[in-house]
Amino acid sequence: MPFNAKHLLSIENLSIEQIQLILATATSFREISKRPIKKVPTLRGKTVINLFFEASTRTRTSFEIAAKRLSADAINISVSASSIAKGETLIDTVRNLEAMAPDVIVIRHPSAGAPHQLAKRCTACIVNAGDGAHEHPTQALLDALTILDHKPTLKDLRVGIIGDIAHSRVARSNCLLLGKMGAHVTICGPPTLLPMHFDQMGPFPGSLTVTDRMSEALDGADVVMMLRVQLERQQEAFFPSVREYFGSYGLTPQRMNSAKRDAIIMHPGPINRGVEISSEVADGRYSVILNQVASGVAVRMAILYLVTGGREQREFGPES
Amino acid sequence: MPFNAKHLLSIENLSIEQIQLILATATSFREISKRPIKKVPTLRGKTVINLFFEASTRTRTSFEIAAKRLSADAINISVSASSIAKGETLIDTVRNLEAMAPDVIVIRHPSAGAPHQLAKRCTACIVNAGDGAHEHPTQALLDALTILDHKPTLKDLRVGIIGDIAHSRVARSNCLLLGKMGAHVTICGPPTLLPMHFDQMGPFPGSLTVTDRMSEALDGADVVMMLRVQLERQQEAFFPSVREYFGSYGLTPQRMNSAKRDAIIMHPGPINRGVEISSEVADGRYSVILNQVASGVAVRMAILYLVTGGREQREFGPES
Amino acid sequence: MPFNAKHLLSIENLSIEQIQLILATATSFREISKRPIKKVPTLRGKTVINLFFEASTRTRTSFEIAAKRLSADAINISVSASSIAKGETLIDTVRNLEAMAPDVIVIRHPSAGAPHQLAKRCTACIVNAGDGAHEHPTQALLDALTILDHKPTLKDLRVGIIGDIAHSRVARSNCLLLGKMGAHVTICGPPTLLPMHFDQMGPFPGSLTVTDRMSEALDGADVVMMLRVQLERQQEAFFPSVREYFGSYGLTPQRMNSAKRDAIIMHPGPINRGVEISSEVADGRYSVILNQVASGVAVRMAILYLVTGGREQREFGPES
Repeated sequence: MPFNAKHLLSIENLSIEQIQLILATATSFREISKRPIKKVPTLRGKTVINLFFEASTRTRTSFEIAAKRLSADAINISVSASSIAKGETLIDTVRNLEAMAPDVIVIRHPSAGAPHQLAKRCTACIVNAGDGAHEHPTQALLDALTILDHKPTLKDLRVGIIGDIAHSRVARSNCLLLGKMGAHVTICGPPTLLPMHFDQMGPFPGSLTVTDRMSEALDGADVVMMLRVQLERQQEAFFPSVREYFGSYGLTPQRMNSAKRDAIIMHPGPINRGVEISSEVADGRYSVILNQVASGVAVRMAILYLVTGGREQREFGPES
Repeated sequence: MPFNAKHLLSIENLSIEQIQLILATATSFREISKRPIKKVPTLRGKTVINLFFEASTRTRTSFEIAAKRLSADAINISVSASSIAKGETLIDTVRNLEAMAPDVIVIRHPSAGAPHQLAKRCTACIVNAGDGAHEHPTQALLDALTILDHKPTLKDLRVGIIGDIAHSRVARSNCLLLGKMGAHVTICGPPTLLPMHFDQMGPFPGSLTVTDRMSEALDGADVVMMLRVQLERQQEAFFPSVREYFGSYGLTPQRMNSAKRDAIIMHPGPINRGVEISSEVADGRYSVILNQVASGVAVRMAILYLVTGGREQREFGPES
Repeated sequence: MPFNAKHLLSIENLSIEQIQLILATATSFREISKRPIKKVPTLRGKTVINLFFEASTRTRTSFEIAAKRLSADAINISVSASSIAKGETLIDTVRNLEAMAPDVIVIRHPSAGAPHQLAKRCTACIVNAGDGAHEHPTQALLDALTILDHKPTLKDLRVGIIGDIAHSRVARSNCLLLGKMGAHVTICGPPTLLPMHFDQMGPFPGSLTVTDRMSEALDGADVVMMLRVQLERQQEAFFPSVREYFGSYGLTPQRMNSAKRDAIIMHPGPINRGVEISSEVADGRYSVILNQVASGVAVRMAILYLVTGGREQREFGPES
């Protein structure tokens, strides 16, 4: 089955079949990172540009490793606020890069919708690595891959997503993906960090519950996704103090008692120990936080492969 | 024909034959970036260091892609002002790098003549990627390659170069190259941005006219090169306001009427829309601005190839 | 002989046999950087992460070149103070990277002991590229390799190490290595820059003399190692002025007269000409400062090779 899409812009745009194809391809790629020689020649001679308008060690590194394990040439570009100030428009920046004939441009940008705008006017494949508070589709896909390592299906799974929902592209992409795949999602956070118009996200696929009571989000959950508290934004004072936040929304072993016995615990990282999650939980038996990171490389390999024209999952032989 | 030079320091130092060899080699390299596998093994096992003392996403990326498409290992080093302050001299920095056995050091430096100084004392090949307000030879070469895509020869071509001539290494290198190749160049800008001593550049090859009237630069032009207004320097107030600059020196469709009907429009980028060039012109039919960027990769591949001992243009087979 | 160690954390942890194995392997690797094709497939498909919490153009570049000449994929991560402030612990940062399946993590960190802590809890090979004022083991190893190019053995060699001993991880690692190998080391600096508790370093192997008189450190020396004066720290005023420092501890041709006639002069770089060393000495016949840099690439190739399971030195054939 072909992927039938040149870009990976959002979960919203993906069909169920495309999501399944990405996850199946990622599953077959995962094994490559466990080989002694972690490299296949699949994208040899392709150029992948990582164009990051926001700092992100983790996501950039994951894409860079994904590209290199497929033998693509990876070019990193960090654009600081200062150089945006030089006056060039985003579309001009990207079309200039495009004139150098990259195959894929992976972009992270503080403005929602930036990758979509580019995709309309560019010939390179555009992959969204996070656009403002809008979407972070590769995160939702790697989260799904991680869940499927521990649960047989996403269908009818009960997922609680807890934290700063309003500013979280991770929450948004996960709600969309999990909804499409038939999971029941409960989003939860202090009222100041809940979206005012979450239903404006469009008719949400599947069932979505909103609550400010953590117990409701945890009750009977198969999956608990904690979101990062962005302490660096705390000057805006969305909650009184870190201590009070942890008291109301921090994940502790006690609180996990209301979730299913075998519920897994997820976090997109970087984690704030003692702010949104206790160390016992983060390092505990049901935490799959590091599995998410490992899944990230596989999902990004799959996406780079599929947007450049790769077809369904198959065996990936070692380098010749 | 061998290139017979170990460094690429300036247009001033190049013979007509060397310029022709670079352009011919670049022409043959251009096709590599259009292949599905954009990579040849030509410089496998060579090390190219991109040593940038000034930020430059565009030029650094172009050199990095050029190196990687030739299978060289590219190492990027950005040296901030702060680390220059650590007290090491430029020559010590470069000799240290040289002790790591790179084949080529591509250098951008704020001081005019820095690459020349290095070339005298280094054994690695030095490529000038811009030295202060002095020269930017690869830009002039990629401009020539772009012109030759649209015009049969540089000889007797009428070229208008418009903008901040005084601070522009792009203008200087282009005047030198176009003059050597027999073009007629008119440089134009507000009196405050015209060089006071342009004739001190040495006896200019070919014919060079200086004017502060844009109509004179455009009249009968085959090629119009607009220069970037460096808004970040505007605190020095070389002109009253952006609006007045655009009024006097901005390129509009109306103004293009005095150029030849098939005149091409060039700009080294990044462009300031509505400052030195209108969007209609920048995005219009005769704009070759993005072609310049594409030519840049080919020219830099040619230069990396030639300074490391590559011989005339030939067929470059795919990777074995 | 196998290396029998998964990490390279410190000289203190290395046995004499391990030191000899690294030096022998580095010697055989050195030749690769002199070939026209400076690359062997030894670490193809391995991933090396350079994780630098302190800026270091030189050391990072050396590791990156070492990795690439062995055909490993090198990933550079510079972590600025600002992003540490995001609240993630070091161990969390590293375990996240580790989840991406790198083979080696090369780390430079401002805290003494950071690499040791990581090694206890990580599965990737950890290489210490400098930890606070503690150790810089690859520097001591490259220094030893350089000395052995000029002297038949380290045993009974007289080595003077002069400068800011108290803050120098270079001095500390060299004292440990040279001591283990039977050299006689004299450390020397102004009393304010001598360690108060150097003997707390543990029972120093071999003989170590401490003095604040430069003549004593130079007297009969086979090797003179100058340390960098960290001018950026001078606000703390460890000595009255640069001029006075040079007067008392700067290395001049005159001062070198008390060393052995064929004594070599070393410096870890970057050098401050006229502060700790005169240009005549730095550029003179007995200076091996640039040889040290060249040795650095070979030593780092050896270490990347050995920690990932490479066995004794052997012939390294060209890329197939």
